[in-house]
Amino acid sequence: MESSWIHVQEDSDFSLQNLPYGIFSLKSEGQQGRARVGVAIGDYVLDLSALATAGLFRDVTVRATVLKTNSVEKIGENGTSADKAAVLADSSECTWPLDTSVFSQPTLNAFMASGKPSWQAIRKRLTQLLANGGDPILKDNAPLKRLALISACETKLHLPADIGDYTDFYSSREHATNVGTMFRGKDNALQPNWLHLPVGYHGRASSVVVSGTNVVRPRGQLQADPSDDKKGSVYGACRLLDFELEMAFYVGGPPTALGRPLTIEEAEEHIFGFSLMNDWSARDIQKWEYVPLGPFGAKNFSTTISPWVVTLDALEPFRCTSSAGPAQDSPAPLSYLHDKDYSTGSYNVNLEVGIQTDDMMSASVVSRSNFRNMYWNAKQQLVHHSVTGCNMRPGDLLGSGTISGQDSTSYGSMLELSWRGAKEIPLSDGTTRKFLKDGDTVKMRGYCQGDGFRVGFGECDGRILPAGSED
Amino acid sequence: MESSWIHVQEDSDFSLQNLPYGIFSLKSEGQQGRARVGVAIGDYVLDLSALATAGLFRDVTVRATVLKTNSVEKIGENGTSADKAAVLADSSECTWPLDTSVFSQPTLNAFMASGKPSWQAIRKRLTQLLANGGDPILKDNAPLKRLALISACETKLHLPADIGDYTDFYSSREHATNVGTMFRGKDNALQPNWLHLPVGYHGRASSVVVSGTNVVRPRGQLQADPSDDKKGSVYGACRLLDFELEMAFYVGGPPTALGRPLTIEEAEEHIFGFSLMNDWSARDIQKWEYVPLGPFGAKNFSTTISPWVVTLDALEPFRCTSSAGPAQDSPAPLSYLHDKDYSTGSYNVNLEVGIQTDDMMSASVVSRSNFRNMYWNAKQQLVHHSVTGCNMRPGDLLGSGTISGQDSTSYGSMLELSWRGAKEIPLSDGTTRKFLKDGDTVKMRGYCQGDGFRVGFGECDGRILPAGSED
Ligand SMILES: [Ca+2]
Ligand SMILES: [Ca+2]
Ligand SMILES: [Mg+2]
Ligand SMILES: [Mg+2]
Ligand code: NI
Repeated sequence: MESSWIHVQEDSDFSLQNLPYGIFSLKSEGQQGRARVGVAIGDYVLDLSALATAGLFRDVTVRATVLKTNSVEKIGENGTSADKAAVLADSSECTWPLDTSVFSQPTLNAFMASGKPSWQAIRKRLTQLLANGGDPILKDNAPLKRLALISACETKLHLPADIGDYTDFYSSREHATNVGTMFRGKDNALQPNWLHLPVGYHGRASSVVVSGTNVVRPRGQLQADPSDDKKGSVYGACRLLDFELEMAFYVGGPPTALGRPLTIEEAEEHIFGFSLMNDWSARDIQKWEYVPLGPFGAKNFSTTISPWVVTLDALEPFRCTSSAGPAQDSPAPLSYLHDKDYSTGSYNVNLEVGIQTDDMMSASVVSRSNFRNMYWNAKQQLVHHSVTGCNMRPGDLLGSGTISGQDSTSYGSMLELSWRGAKEIPLSDGTTRKFLKDGDTVKMRGYCQGDGFRVGFGECDGRILPAGSED
Repeated sequence: MESSWIHVQEDSDFSLQNLPYGIFSLKSEGQQGRARVGVAIGDYVLDLSALATAGLFRDVTVRATVLKTNSVEKIGENGTSADKAAVLADSSECTWPLDTSVFSQPTLNAFMASGKPSWQAIRKRLTQLLANGGDPILKDNAPLKRLALISACETKLHLPADIGDYTDFYSSREHATNVGTMFRGKDNALQPNWLHLPVGYHGRASSVVVSGTNVVRPRGQLQADPSDDKKGSVYGACRLLDFELEMAFYVGGPPTALGRPLTIEEAEEHIFGFSLMNDWSARDIQKWEYVPLGPFGAKNFSTTISPWVVTLDALEPFRCTSSAGPAQDSPAPLSYLHDKDYSTGSYNVNLEVGIQTDDMMSASVVSRSNFRNMYWNAKQQLVHHSVTGCNMRPGDLLGSGTISGQDSTSYGSMLELSWRGAKEIPLSDGTTRKFLKDGDTVKMRGYCQGDGFRVGFGECDGRILPAGSED
């Protein structure tokens, strides 16, 4: 196993094999801190803008097959397949210098937009710079190390991207079955469309917040009589506040054209990387409001995302078969959704949710799940998102949906863990929970286990403040 | 009636009383044209960035009551009502110069963010500059007029804002009743929550396009047997393509804090102005996908918006009573939604939808409605949007929902006009429609009728291209 000259503990999320991207500033810079691109390694954040200024990316070139401009114009509005074949014949292998200005931006959007050839070129260069026996130009430059290699505890982490649009899916069969069973009974648990398409809905981008941001308990309309929706509603604080254990990916590559769906073959080029996500949910508000147009205020009060984005290249060694099995065959998906690599289309990411109060030394684990508990994978979600022609932009965030496994200890929400409040979930301090209480901090963690190293996701935490705290 | 020295026809949308804002560039500048802020008047666009450069806003000051910084800090996390009273006592009347840099921006976001006192100061100044008998500094400066007063036909209009989030509501009782009757029968037409809250859902911001942008007929999953949802789906082009006649408003003022709901008293300060909106809808795709999380691909392929934004100040003389009556009393809304000015909370905007094919000289009108056909008004929609703590940002777009009246000629969608395909709607060329055909251009128009002038919204047009046109 390749190792770094920077000390990385075996159980660190941020091994040399990971190299996740994030946006940071220095705590010492205060509110006006310059937010820029960093990479996490061990207990450090490597400042890519400083490396760029020092010229350490000077020789990095990006290599890709590109279409020549004139020929692309040929297949404008009225392009035939013959035109397209001609264009492909007219493509050529090109190289160009890496655009390092993206590393001084306050979001990852520009780097995300730069495309997979750029992502791979920079990952290769960072590995050279950080590996034992690699290029010693950083290792042997003490002043540059002092400048560019910053203790994580001295950094403040920001939202990784300006999220143009945020979408949430609903793609764990166990989660959909659990929720369906509770609300419609076992025989009608899955809706008729569920096995045919990755059900998704548009979410709220403005309230996606980075780990560590407090979450105010929402207030809103609650059904006056929970068993009779004809009796109207009352205003009040949510009583059934919940988390949803999810992963989410950021769209990368150039923006896609409106009216031109992505194909399943193209999908992976447009997936930049993954983070952990807590899709906070107000179950009582949701129950009353969601008919017939879906969840709204029950979800838009906050969505917490982990600050580091783990690339597909880092996740590649952890590809695995979905817990749903190696093939989707009952029914088989329509061909635009058919992923020929479905059998290795999941990722083996261990996931955990803990609840911690101020009186507890560490979080009490309430759920252990795995990202492989997904029926529809990210490529399928992305392709379905664009099937009607919806344009996708770099920085868009697509959530997996709650990740529940078969075992009742692997359920990804309190709704399922407590089975709609029928069961008490014990915490390590002797108290129990059906839903979340004020002062609870919900902590999500995730990592892929390699041989002697981890590719992990860092923290996805949020603490609940009482309703009205910000009034 | 005050009139302008610029010739404005009686039936022009853009009278001196209107002064809507938009983003334009010059056609002669081509693709690289400099997008900046303009105001429509008669057949002209007035370039506000040119007026700013020429110093015509130099003496404009903004006046408002502001809270002193120190006292605002007092009411931080733990503020009591006594703290708040102290802060109000500590507020003072301030004036500051207008920030004219907002007029050279390629979106209206910065101007929207500047707040109502700025919007009113600039409206007052523009009225002085354009009214007969006002300040002659523009009227008498021929070179400046040549530079700043541009024939509308020489301009290209752009999307007015960078839309952070787009939300659509469902607030016409007649529309909700019509759709509910079709799908659930007359007795269950309105869902139990409908009269208690303005039902809304998050939409897709990336695919909001400006009038004149072509719309590609979407493809996606259609129920294999429309009468049996157990038989799965097939892939194909939408057969039931529809428009939805809507109006939409842009949020203005400073961004609101996450976790801090807007009150109904504050709402109007955060409404910048209105446009026309066509919420294109694929009815067959929607029917199959929308359970249980709401519409997704059936809506996210395109949403057309008119380029001009008509301010609340321009609409003020056209306040009126909702067609639903002067009060909401059965049931009365919860107090956070109670608008004490509800009886004058609607606007009397005449609305019209036409369909035009390439062979027709003008559009064939298929619907005549009015914006007063709304049960929930914009203030209520905005307050409900933030009730759980959702933060609202300048440039956010909130759609009214389809605006249908009681009369069957006032329905705001083909779904209702053709009553789910049971009726043929005749066009002036002798053809008929149940839903939209390739080549159809849908044209929406809206105006308030004053005494000898109009406050209108301009064009909201989109032409349908065949499925796959952009592949
Ligand atoms: Ca979710
Ligand atoms: Ca709509
Ligand atoms: Mg957005
Ligand atoms: Mg958005
Ligand atoms: Ni060690």
